[in-house]
Amino acid sequence: MSDSTSPAAVAVLGLGAMGSALAGALLDAGHRVTVWNRTPARAEPLAARGAAVAPTAEQALAAAPLAIVCLLDYASVREALDPAAGALAGRVLANLTNGTPEQARAMADWAARHGAAYLDGGIMATPSMIGGHASSVLYSGAPEAFEAHRAAFETFGEAVFLGPDPGAAPLNDLALLTGMYGMLGGFLHATALVGADGPSASEFTAERLIPWLSGMMQDLPEIARQIDTGDTPPAESNLAMQAAGYVNLIRASQAQGVRTDLIAPMGELLREAVARGRGDGDLAALHDLLTAPTG
Amino acid sequence: MSDSTSPAAVAVLGLGAMGSALAGALLDAGHRVTVWNRTPARAEPLAARGAAVAPTAEQALAAAPLAIVCLLDYASVREALDPAAGALAGRVLANLTNGTPEQARAMADWAARHGAAYLDGGIMATPSMIGGHASSVLYSGAPEAFEAHRAAFETFGEAVFLGPDPGAAPLNDLALLTGMYGMLGGFLHATALVGADGPSASEFTAERLIPWLSGMMQDLPEIARQIDTGDTPPAESNLAMQAAGYVNLIRASQAQGVRTDLIAPMGELLREAVARGRGDGDLAALHDLLTAPTG
Ligand SMILES: NC(=O)c1ccc[n+]([C@@H]2O[C@H](COP(=O)([O-])OP(=O)(O)OC[C@H]3O[C@@H](n4cnc5c(N)ncnc54)[C@H](OP(=O)(O)O)[C@@H]3O)[C@@H](O)[C@H]2O)c1
Ligand SMILES: NC(=O)c1ccc[n+]([C@@H]2O[C@H](COP(=O)([O-])OP(=O)(O)OC[C@H]3O[C@@H](n4cnc5c(N)ncnc54)[C@H](OP(=O)(O)O)[C@@H]3O)[C@@H](O)[C@H]2O)c1
Repeated sequence: MSDSTSPAAVAVLGLGAMGSALAGALLDAGHRVTVWNRTPARAEPLAARGAAVAPTAEQALAAAPLAIVCLLDYASVREALDPAAGALAGRVLANLTNGTPEQARAMADWAARHGAAYLDGGIMATPSMIGGHASSVLYSGAPEAFEAHRAAFETFGEAVFLGPDPGAAPLNDLALLTGMYGMLGGFLHATALVGADGPSASEFTAERLIPWLSGMMQDLPEIARQIDTGDTPPAESNLAMQAAGYVNLIRASQAQGVRTDLIAPMGELLREAVARGRGDGDLAALHDLLTAPTG
Repeated sequence: MSDSTSPAAVAVLGLGAMGSALAGALLDAGHRVTVWNRTPARAEPLAARGAAVAPTAEQALAAAPLAIVCLLDYASVREALDPAAGALAGRVLANLTNGTPEQARAMADWAARHGAAYLDGGIMATPSMIGGHASSVLYSGAPEAFEAHRAAFETFGEAVFLGPDPGAAPLNDLALLTGMYGMLGGFLHATALVGADGPSASEFTAERLIPWLSGMMQDLPEIARQIDTGDTPPAESNLAMQAAGYVNLIRASQAQGVRTDLIAPMGELLREAVARGRGDGDLAALHDLLTAPTG
């Protein structure tokens, strides 16, 4: 399929912020790129950079052995691809749209019924990071399809293959996103809390929050080890103490007029852990609460 | 007060995990240390390292010009110090117990009524970090008291003075803690989500989550800039797209049997932002929701 000496032809379906960045990276690397978007105007900047513009999704699929799809969600993918399914036979469909493991597996089955090899992907980057050293994309699904098109995928950043289960990339993607949203939520609450009386958000973030979070991040591997092994040494920061301190986070936020939506659930979880006799424990005990079957 | 050639005498009240670490750092630096704890047995390891043990809080206060207090919460501080207030006159009281800005200001008033200069502090470290290069403690309150005892404070790590309002250190402390709990909550949810089908928590954390969070942390200064200035360039990751993707985080968690308590509120906030016409915006729009007066 792909030829290591001349970059292969690639179709890109979906030219939102992310699809446009993906198509741009492929153009930069010398690939022949055919693009399609529901709203045609979004293809113009890429056409100016040398992309061919297909008037329909079906014509885009017909133009290249590899189609990269990056739309809003799986509902839009089905809406765009269902009428184009006749052009899928013998192609590789790499769907980098955010979705669940179940959706990825169902899409792989659908692609197989139309004769296409399927890869699902999770993009661990913002559009401006695409093609840079901090960008990586997780893939899972048909191993030969990944190998055949590795060169194209590597134009986006590191290309990580997680195995044949199409659900593996989305599962890891979604898990990383929950980690990111936790950090973002903490950041948003923290800057709101210091906002009224304290330093600017920029000063607080650069001088205090980032060094502090970078330091605390070093503790995550030890908590992960405790989660994996169940081996919990005496707590340095016991949960009863943490639950007592958490009350202060809530009260101070209320006093500053900052909504506690984002921080309240962790306080509830700490209280629950203490109520269940885990007050002497460390954060790994919270993992058990999150994964315990609810009764 | 303190003498730059010979380390000053210091009293440490409270020998939990953190108070014991503080007393240990002072002993390591050659200070004469007198310790007190409600439960006397916790003083034994420090006595073996050369600390004098005071039988009452009052006798501990009487033994040194600087008293460092590190108890569970402000209720325990008042319970421990009320009967000892007669020994406070002329001393510096540095209270490193977690509390709110209001509690710190009330404690400063109480200390002033008993003739003591007051410093409030927020310890940005775990006990094992105390004395190391990654440890810092935020102080606010009486500036002369901070300067006089800077040498003792620096035995704990970096000593940062945030000004005369005793509430400044706790406000910054609590804000940093909300940032930390956001990151920890994201980590706990992420490891629970990959747990059933994916890599071990240790492998996921070391190989994927930490590099990913470290990369995403580089975006925080730009969001902070948007919060400070109100200047919001076209979104790279618009909130409507994020709200659509967030649904997948919730669904996949439910499918894996992971409680969504910690992640649900961010999804609600994204939906609310979209409902209020901020779907084209970026994360800085969520700051406005957190700080808007509720109606
Ligand atoms: N931006 C990021 O930071 C980022 C990072 C990682 C992953 N992602 C993922 O990448 C995907 C795209 O995100 P984005 O930032 O590019 O979003 P976006 O800028 O909002 O673009 C959305 C794209 O989906 C198309 N679309 C929506 N509904 C459609 C439908 N029913 N039929 C056909 N096309 C439809 C839009 O077409 P129109 O132009 O016609 O509306 C547009 O091309 C999402 O799954 C997202 O989770 C984004
Ligand atoms: N550990 C950390 O990672 C960490 C990090 C930053 C800040 N902090 C802060 O440091 C403070 C102490 O935390 P810690 O980890 O040392 O907690 P800890 O190990 O649970 O110790 C609690 C201490 O408070 C004392 N205490 C509780 N109730 C009391 C009362 N009514 N009267 C007198 N003494 C009482 C305990 O005395 P007994 O021994 O008699 O029970 C013990 O000395 C907290 O405010 C915490 O938020 C801790």
